[in-house]
Amino acid sequence: MINLKQKKANFVPLTPVSFLRRSAIAFPRKLAVKDDSVSLTYSELYERCLRLSSALSQVGIGNGDTVAALMPNTHQMLEAHNGIPMCGAVLNALNIRLEVSSIAYILDHSRAKLLIADAQFMSIAEEAISLANYDVRLLVTPSDSSADHSQLSYEAFLASGYPDPTAPKIENEMSPISLGYTSGTTGRPKGVLCHHRGAYLNTLGNVVAANLNQHSRYLWTLPMFHCNGWSHTWGVSAVGGTHYCLPRIDPERIMETIVKEGITHMCAAPVVMNMLLEWTEGKDFHLPSPVRILTGGSAPPTKVILAMEELGFEVIQIFGQTETTGPSLIREWPEDWGTLEPEYRAKMKTRQGFQLITMDEAIVGKPETGEEVVRNGKEIGELMFRGNTVMIGYLNNQEETDKAMLNGWFHSGDLAVRHPDGSIELKDRAKDIIISGGENISCIEIEEVLYSHPLVRNVAVVARADEKWGEHPCAFIEISRNAGKINEKDLIEYCRQHLAGFKIPKSFIFGDLPMTETGKIQKFQLRERLQQENNFGDLEKEI
Amino acid sequence: MINLKQKKANFVPLTPVSFLRRSAIAFPRKLAVKDDSVSLTYSELYERCLRLSSALSQVGIGNGDTVAALMPNTHQMLEAHNGIPMCGAVLNALNIRLEVSSIAYILDHSRAKLLIADAQFMSIAEEAISLANYDVRLLVTPSDSSADHSQLSYEAFLASGYPDPTAPKIENEMSPISLGYTSGTTGRPKGVLCHHRGAYLNTLGNVVAANLNQHSRYLWTLPMFHCNGWSHTWGVSAVGGTHYCLPRIDPERIMETIVKEGITHMCAAPVVMNMLLEWTEGKDFHLPSPVRILTGGSAPPTKVILAMEELGFEVIQIFGQTETTGPSLIREWPEDWGTLEPEYRAKMKTRQGFQLITMDEAIVGKPETGEEVVRNGKEIGELMFRGNTVMIGYLNNQEETDKAMLNGWFHSGDLAVRHPDGSIELKDRAKDIIISGGENISCIEIEEVLYSHPLVRNVAVVARADEKWGEHPCAFIEISRNAGKINEKDLIEYCRQHLAGFKIPKSFIFGDLPMTETGKIQKFQLRERLQQENNFGDLEKEI
Repeated sequence: MINLKQKKANFVPLTPVSFLRRSAIAFPRKLAVKDDSVSLTYSELYERCLRLSSALSQVGIGNGDTVAALMPNTHQMLEAHNGIPMCGAVLNALNIRLEVSSIAYILDHSRAKLLIADAQFMSIAEEAISLANYDVRLLVTPSDSSADHSQLSYEAFLASGYPDPTAPKIENEMSPISLGYTSGTTGRPKGVLCHHRGAYLNTLGNVVAANLNQHSRYLWTLPMFHCNGWSHTWGVSAVGGTHYCLPRIDPERIMETIVKEGITHMCAAPVVMNMLLEWTEGKDFHLPSPVRILTGGSAPPTKVILAMEELGFEVIQIFGQTETTGPSLIREWPEDWGTLEPEYRAKMKTRQGFQLITMDEAIVGKPETGEEVVRNGKEIGELMFRGNTVMIGYLNNQEETDKAMLNGWFHSGDLAVRHPDGSIELKDRAKDIIISGGENISCIEIEEVLYSHPLVRNVAVVARADEKWGEHPCAFIEISRNAGKINEKDLIEYCRQHLAGFKIPKSFIFGDLPMTETGKIQKFQLRERLQQENNFGDLEKEI
Repeated sequence: MINLKQKKANFVPLTPVSFLRRSAIAFPRKLAVKDDSVSLTYSELYERCLRLSSALSQVGIGNGDTVAALMPNTHQMLEAHNGIPMCGAVLNALNIRLEVSSIAYILDHSRAKLLIADAQFMSIAEEAISLANYDVRLLVTPSDSSADHSQLSYEAFLASGYPDPTAPKIENEMSPISLGYTSGTTGRPKGVLCHHRGAYLNTLGNVVAANLNQHSRYLWTLPMFHCNGWSHTWGVSAVGGTHYCLPRIDPERIMETIVKEGITHMCAAPVVMNMLLEWTEGKDFHLPSPVRILTGGSAPPTKVILAMEELGFEVIQIFGQTETTGPSLIREWPEDWGTLEPEYRAKMKTRQGFQLITMDEAIVGKPETGEEVVRNGKEIGELMFRGNTVMIGYLNNQEETDKAMLNGWFHSGDLAVRHPDGSIELKDRAKDIIISGGENISCIEIEEVLYSHPLVRNVAVVARADEKWGEHPCAFIEISRNAGKINEKDLIEYCRQHLAGFKIPKSFIFGDLPMTETGKIQKFQLRERLQQENNFGDLEKEI
């Protein structure tokens, strides 16, 4: 009897680009973004995005077309996050550290029609385009080092558009908004397609998780190309906060900007927190007002959390994947964290927690049946998600999509336990678990212990082939700068105080660890090293 | 090429009842609600809602069936907001001040299958049911004054259900979640049907607008039956905050609870703020910590805002209607309100502002064409909305639905202007504007002036027939308790200092003003009085 049909007045496809329009209405003259080159109000930022959208439409780019972006954290990168989806196109934000061949592969795989590149990456962009099998138009955004590339000028392109008030032109909220290529494995990257509906909801979920509001001053150290900056590219704009962009990770500039601009929020991988801590060493530094720092990418070690909190940061762990449109777990705590003993608080914060309010379900269970593990903090299962912020699928890869979305769940590929309080704790990537003498050993547990050693700066534990046990834990150790001598014997002794015997690494390798630019230790490289070298004698020497 | 079909892993119908489940996972042992009878944790509240949902299913109540609720602010009313929609049924929250005949009319019109009533309303409920043309089952929730009504026992009904983990059972997010009957006009009330998608989004929009988080302690003075408590029935649960319920408006208890429980947020109509201010008269009262108070229902007078802020409240104006699933405008300000001159700040706060981030568009324009007015703070148009939080329509009233949703806009029936900064300011209900000598006169503008007079407690200005001018403004005045004498001449003199001559009321009537229980002055009653009395001499005497 009741007509449930969507009407023009009561149904508008959800899209996170709607948030910028709203802030241009509510906060037209408020500072939206400040980077090394300009400051823009919400009115100005919105107009530039409308121009970008219209200019794209004029050259025939629209629904479902891919536009790639190769840029650090700049206002142009924020514009790409809004202007490209406004015309129906799909934003493919490229990791700026990728080698030319990978960029060329992605341009081909995504059939990108246009690449917007920062001038500092112009030669890489040109080379990648020349390697690609399809025509890709190049636009270059100015940077200090750039000459005038009038033919390729992003600014001239924007000027060719006009502020089209009918944008965004989204008809189906399940249509793609972004395409992100996953890295970290040795195979070819997969293109993760996320939809407007999921990006809209994940943005709101992260606004609530980060507790952003119009007074928020958000510092961009996390690359925007990383899961659309964990949705804060849209979220900070949604609440009318201000984006402060830093083009690279520089601890001194980060700390200076925090103090000078009154930063309230930022996101950073644990490795960035490490860099901030090292910078403060020997300095009498304390934040003038608290900064909420959301961390993820890998579990933050207890001692890093403690040290950050001493500086005045409030550390909150989140967890997500490109496939879940960014952060989808958050470490909630029922009361004020401040009432807890610091050590206990930091320990509790190393868990990944609970689904964001916009992710319907997160469970740890058997991937075949969805049957959940016992909530005892011990039984290991796969972390699985169901909800509106799960991706559309992998571009042109039905097989992997079907595998990832089997039985109505998104399979994260991460192994986890569930504690009696319901919180989820990641143990490892499925393939990172070590099976030694039939016992499952979590690399993260061992890493956590080694991280707590005062002289250890970074650590990665991986499985190493073992004639007797099948596998054993092998620890790669990077010692703190200016730290004293330390050797295998010391570390074994230290582990013995905190770990069951079968979990103690049987080999230690000292040296710098290979990192992604977002601070993830590239364990696959360490595994490759172990496989490639028959004689490990050289590796195991102390540095 | 890309399969955009919704999958089980990446599409879940949006519904605000999902928020409670999530808080039961993330905050199981946290205090969810405290009222005069019990305190419940999130785990307990969730279980009771699941039981209610299951018990309803067991008696054959499900998709699209109406369940009515006649309750003050209690934990059972919160349960009704979750348990009823969980089984697919539609919550019809009744205004507890309605007369029996209106309740009977609504029960009939909505074809309610069940009525859940607080014991204090048992006889009213029974009488209304006896007047209704269809069978309505009655359940009674215990209250202090109640005997044991075992046959009608809500608790026994709950016990007959079980915590069904498969709830909610929502298949279409556009399906109805709530039915609210609009009051305030003389005609039969209309049944406003709102949908799950809109309620979910409006909840998130209001969480952001109120800046709620898990540390929020929300005081229920606003009736939950009023637009589902402006969505905070779901919103406070979404963030894992705590609901503190007061069954009636009692300034002393409100102030005591704020101090004792460390309340952070509440909602209240301007008249409630007036009551709080009167209670503090002669007392040396100041809040120990700031409380954010969201106000709406009518525009708060400047002097009320100023006085509330002096007590330590942060006043934020919102505006909404049952048809927009509750609040849909919020008075945003680009900077910190605290940096403004108090008088100017309060004046700015009397505007209704901008659409919430979850309402796509709010415009002021010509109802026929949607053409917007000039943003000069003068040109008057109709406030219109478009977005996902607009209702499904009026139940069994296609004609009024079509009229309200004409040309792709929801027509609010409110007249407004738009200021140069883009903010919307309501001038009046369409029929409340006074046209005197061809000039449009806003009742609100005159009321604002009269409210600023120190001896005026409440004021309502309506149109009065005038042989010469067509209409003229007539002011109904309620003077402050214990205030000195005041007469028409004083008020005309006062108006002359602040208003153009043609706007000064030509008649003044002193006495108590008729109010709804939510503090809206019932102007239609005042208009009726003017129509009914040919000789107004009696009315115009001073009290």
